[in-house]
This record gives sequence, C-alpha cells and structure tokens, in this order.
Amino acid sequence: MTPLYVARPLLPPLEDLTELLGEIWSSGIVTNEGPLHNRLEAELAQRLNVPFAKLFNNGTVAMLCALLSLDLSPGAEIITTPLTFAATAHAIAACGYKPVFADICEDTLTLDPRAVEKAITSKTEAVIGVHVYGTLCDVEGLDRVCKAHDLKLLYDAAHAFAAMQGGTPVGTMGDLSVFSLHATKLFSTFEGGLVTSNDEGMAQRLRLARNFGIMNEERVAVVGINGKMSEVHAAIGLLNLKIFEEERDIRRALRAEYDQVVGRLPGLRAQIKQPGVKQSEQYYMIIVDPQVYGATRDEIYDALKEREIFSRKYFWPICTDFDCYKNFTIHTVHDAPVSNNVKDRVLCLPFHSGVEAEHIAAVADVLTELHCTRREPSVSKVG
Amino acid sequence: MTPLYVARPLLPPLEDLTELLGEIWSSGIVTNEGPLHNRLEAELAQRLNVPFAKLFNNGTVAMLCALLSLDLSPGAEIITTPLTFAATAHAIAACGYKPVFADICEDTLTLDPRAVEKAITSKTEAVIGVHVYGTLCDVEGLDRVCKAHDLKLLYDAAHAFAAMQGGTPVGTMGDLSVFSLHATKLFSTFEGGLVTSNDEGMAQRLRLARNFGIMNEERVAVVGINGKMSEVHAAIGLLNLKIFEEERDIRRALRAEYDQVVGRLPGLRAQIKQPGVKQSEQYYMIIVDPQVYGATRDEIYDALKEREIFSRKYFWPICTDFDCYKNFTIHTVHDAPVSNNVKDRVLCLPFHSGVEAEHIAAVADVLTELHCTRREPSVSKVG
Repeated sequence: MTPLYVARPLLPPLEDLTELLGEIWSSGIVTNEGPLHNRLEAELAQRLNVPFAKLFNNGTVAMLCALLSLDLSPGAEIITTPLTFAATAHAIAACGYKPVFADICEDTLTLDPRAVEKAITSKTEAVIGVHVYGTLCDVEGLDRVCKAHDLKLLYDAAHAFAAMQGGTPVGTMGDLSVFSLHATKLFSTFEGGLVTSNDEGMAQRLRLARNFGIMNEERVAVVGINGKMSEVHAAIGLLNLKIFEEERDIRRALRAEYDQVVGRLPGLRAQIKQPGVKQSEQYYMIIVDPQVYGATRDEIYDALKEREIFSRKYFWPICTDFDCYKNFTIHTVHDAPVSNNVKDRVLCLPFHSGVEAEHIAAVADVLTELHCTRREPSVSKVG
Repeated sequence: MTPLYVARPLLPPLEDLTELLGEIWSSGIVTNEGPLHNRLEAELAQRLNVPFAKLFNNGTVAMLCALLSLDLSPGAEIITTPLTFAATAHAIAACGYKPVFADICEDTLTLDPRAVEKAITSKTEAVIGVHVYGTLCDVEGLDRVCKAHDLKLLYDAAHAFAAMQGGTPVGTMGDLSVFSLHATKLFSTFEGGLVTSNDEGMAQRLRLARNFGIMNEERVAVVGINGKMSEVHAAIGLLNLKIFEEERDIRRALRAEYDQVVGRLPGLRAQIKQPGVKQSEQYYMIIVDPQVYGATRDEIYDALKEREIFSRKYFWPICTDFDCYKNFTIHTVHDAPVSNNVKDRVLCLPFHSGVEAEHIAAVADVLTELHCTRREPSVSKVG
C-alpha cells in the first residue's frame, strides 16, 4: 500500500497543458491579466454563478487584497474564528489590523453569531466567517449581526468551492468571499486565489488592490499590491475546471463509505450534514469523544501514521495557540470556548480520488481496533 | 516593423519546460518548497554569490515578507524614495507602516543619504533604498546613516539582478535585498520574487514569513502569509537562469548603440555609468533637458508611439503624485526636490533582445528629427 496523504493535487493532462503553454509562448503574454487569466475569470464567474470573480496568486494574498479593498481604519478590529487555517488571522495581522477571536457553534464548528456580538467593540469594522471543512456558516445569523452593527462581512470560503445552500451559491454570501485555489483544494491552480462578490464597485476595488492601485498609466489611486495570477497558473485552472466535478463525485462516494465506518463506532462522529447544502467535498472530518470511543484523536493519528496513512489534526493548534496570538481571548457565550474543547478532537482523513478500497479498509481496521482494544481494559477495570 | 515595447519576457525553450513539467507530474509535488523550488534557491544563491536566497511568488509579496520578518513596531515609519515603482511604497503601507519619502541624488537618481537623515523621526525604523534603473544606491552613505540611527536597511533590487559593485554582489548589501522576478525583469519566472541576505537568522525569519509563520506541525511562531513560489514557476526559473546572461550580453551591446545616438544629441543624457559597477542591464533610461534638446520627454514618448515604439515614462507619476500619498512631503537637502524635477524628464527606451537594427534606426530618427525641427523655430525666434 502506498503512503496516503489528506490531499492530493488535481493534475490536468500534461498534453493539454503543453498545448495551452504553446498559446502563451506564441502570444508572449505571460502574466498581467492575460487572455487565459481573463478566460478563467469569466468561466469561474459562470461556473460559480457569481456576478464578479477576481483571480489572485494565492488565497492569502486574495484575503490581503480583500481587506485592502475595504479601506478600514488603521488598527481596526476584525472578528474571526480561531478554528481556521493560520492564513485567516495572519492576513488580518499582516495588514496591521487586529484579529479578534469569537467562538464557534457546537454543531457546525463555524463562527457563532452570538459570540461575534459579544466580541464587538467600537473598533470592530469587519467579520470574517470561515466555512470550515466545507460546512457553511450561519449566514443569516452573521448577516443579521453585521447589518445591526454596520460591519463588513467577509467569508473565507477556502474549503467551500462550488458549494450551494439551497439555490444560493456560496460565492454570493456576505460582502465578498475569498477562495484558495491551492494544490490541496478541490479545484486548484497549484497556487491561486479567488474573490467573488455581488458588487461591481467591490470588484473594481479588488482589481485595483491586486495591481498596485494602478487606474491607468497616469494615475495610481489607492494602496495595492501584486496579487496577479500568471498565465501558466490560469492555464492549469482552465484545465482543472473541466475535471474537478469528477473528483467531487468520487469524493462524495468516498464520504458515504467513510460514513459507514464512522457510523458504526460509538464516540466518533462525522462532520455535520447541512440540509439543502451541496457540499464542496473538500474534507472528511471526524470528531472524537475519547471517553466513549476509548482512544484519543492523537492516538488515532499515530495509529494511522504507523500504516503510512497521514491524517491531519485540522485544526490544531488553533489560532489562539500560536505564539503570536497566545494571549488573545476567545469571546464565547459558553462557560468555556467550544473551540478549545474541539481542537484536540478533530481529525481530517485522507479524502481524494487516490483513496482506494484497501485504504478505506485499513482506516476501518485502525478505527475499529483502537476502539475495541481500548474499550476492554476499561471494561475490565470497571469489573 | 512590429510594435516594440520597453520589455519582453525571456521565454525558455518550451520543450525543456515540458520535460521539467513531466518531473512535477511524476512527483505530484506542485508547490510548498518542492524539489525544483529548492534547486532554484540553491542555484540562485550560488549565481548571485549570496549566503542566503529565498524565493517568493512575486517581488511585492517578497517585500511584504521582508517587512514582516523585521518585526517593526505598529505604525513604524519607513523611509524610501518617491522615484520608484508603486510596489515599494505600497508594501510599506499595506503592512500598516508609514512610507516617508526622501529625495534622490542628482547624478544617480537613487536615495540621497543626506535627505534620509533629514527625514528621520523617533518613529523611523527602516530605510528602503532602490537601485533604480539598475543604478546602485550610495550604499556606503546609506549604511552610515542607518548604523548611526539604528535603522534596518533594505534594498529594492528589482532592477539590479546580478549586478556587482567591485567585488561586492548586490544581494549582499544592507540587511536584505528584495528582487522581482516578474516577466519584465532580466531574469524572470514570469511572476516571482527573491530576497537575499547574509544573515542566517534573517533567512529563517523570511522562510517563516512566506509560510504562515509555521515552524512545524505543532507550532506557529509568528505572523506570516503565503509567499510560496510554485514548482511550475520554479521550473521556468531554472531554465531562464541558463539563458539570462546571453540576454544581458545582447542588452549591453544595445546600450552602446543607444549611447551613440543619445551622445550626439544635446539636451539628452543617458543613465549614469558607475565606475566598477557591473550593470544588471535592466533598463535604458534617458533624461531630457527640454530647454537644450528642444522637445519634452512627453513629446519624445508621443513621437515614438506614432512609430509603434512604446517607451515608458518611468517613473512618472512618482509616489507623491499618487492619490494615496498626495500630501506626503519629499524630504530634501535642496530648495526643491530633485525627484519632482526629474520625474517629467525621464524615459525608458525599449531594451531587450527583440530590439533590432531597424528599431534603433527608428529611435535615432525620431530623437534626431525632434531635436532639429524644434531647434529651428526656437533659433528663428531668437533671431
């Protein structure tokens, strides 16, 4: 059995890429909003059913540009969840703003609107919800809080490419949604990012933010950086756009298989299923209750690793465990933050088209064995 | 005659690239400090004769990461030149720091150490010198000022790839040097950036800054973003590294030809030649004295454009002309800033291996005609 990782990059056929590279070599246009870049933006806007889609060189730079395009006050506070990839909080801090952490809901593990409300101060100017593991935020709840307090509402949709809630495409939620198109993502350009919005003015500001604030040869209007995606990465995107749905279908079937395994084992629960939501199929996440299951998340991780199956402790450490945010509060409506309670219990299993039947069987073996062997001594102790 | 632009991207042979892409497709490693990325870093460190070279996805993100790695105080002031590409000042502002502009030297058009000294306040923490057009800064002067005032000294070396001053490689100057590897640059990865340093600790901090501050799976130490270069761009870099010297040789010969044309025309002067300096051959820049020459920079630009020769008014507008820095002072040791005096008089001519003899002849025609036809009415007026 070959070693297995949580994610595997989607690779388009190399012959097809070589053909598109030929186009680039002929035109001599290798970056700066070239023809393939513009074609990919148009195709993504159509595919994601959003009015405006702007490409970036990666998801973090996309978030930086999104924040720049909001023109917030120096030192503004931005509320987000601690249960997210480092990029969310770091993008806030790298711009000189202050990340403020609010707790998550127990079921979805996404930002709790009630906790957001508790975290608001006179300096708060924006909220970033994260559709973590592809589970969608309480979009209505966050919208209500942000409208009531006149805050910008952004979504980190890195895990939620092409997700839908009822008839609502994920990219149309809030003021804007930021996607990562990194190699680990369902749809990828190897390195890449995307911001979607319903608002044309916002789309124009995003475009300025990613190209040095340059309006034209004679005028630089605002602070901007370089967020441009090259033609080579755009070419990869055009090709992967044709095949990512097939990958998603395979993952959907894989989810059902994992669900069967996890469903049999007390103390393990899979990521929540949201009614009416079409999942991105980005991650397969389980939550471990060690008291009931008989072993900890870390023990599962180690046991899988012994079989060369590399799961990930996503997300641990959480942002408030980082050296740079160590003394930051997690604002919560509970006695203790849910975030701190779940961070040691979540685990993402390998989830992509490279996961074969033998891998699933091996995962099932490990999970079942750990449960059974650990339960016994505990039972005998009681006896 | 085909239209001619200031820059043309260096394209490696497509067959060679396809071969390297084959390696990437086989390994399945498409980014995150992959094998080609690491090979390119090693080759660049050797080629540029610097102890440490760290790759980035573009020059601006490289500058952002350089600034993050310095751990400056919130709201710190950073002194730089207004005669530079927008990225230099924007990188400062995007991090929440304050760009402070100091004037340039009349001969080199680079940051004047005396002006820097006048711009220093208690909030100043760093200085960014720019080797504009490939002309090297007064490195000794800046070093003296920065040491005296305990300031970090960075160089924006976007125009100075592989330049040398005597035996000193450009990448070893100051605390660190930031290069752009954009398509317009002598050595390019289409989109890319590079930071060099003599200091191992700095190199480690740069690496943290470009990868979310992640030390290992269990520890996030500092604020960092995504500054990673993909394997595809690294592959392009490995191939372009083999051919950029040939391009530089062609440009060196082209410079001599342009010099002959410009040298004949009163009121035009070419970029200064610095004794003992090996030029990057990034740009060919002329400075126009309209009183003596008989026509303005803009008239030259327009006349060339009519012949489909697209020069660039580099750098106009300068940073203090941008909407976002409009009320910012240029600190100077003169009655009026040199920067404001030269910004309407500098022009970069097409400068790359695509410039043919017929193009040079056309440029010579335009420059000579403009001079002669304009001189006459002016002479007859006097008469």
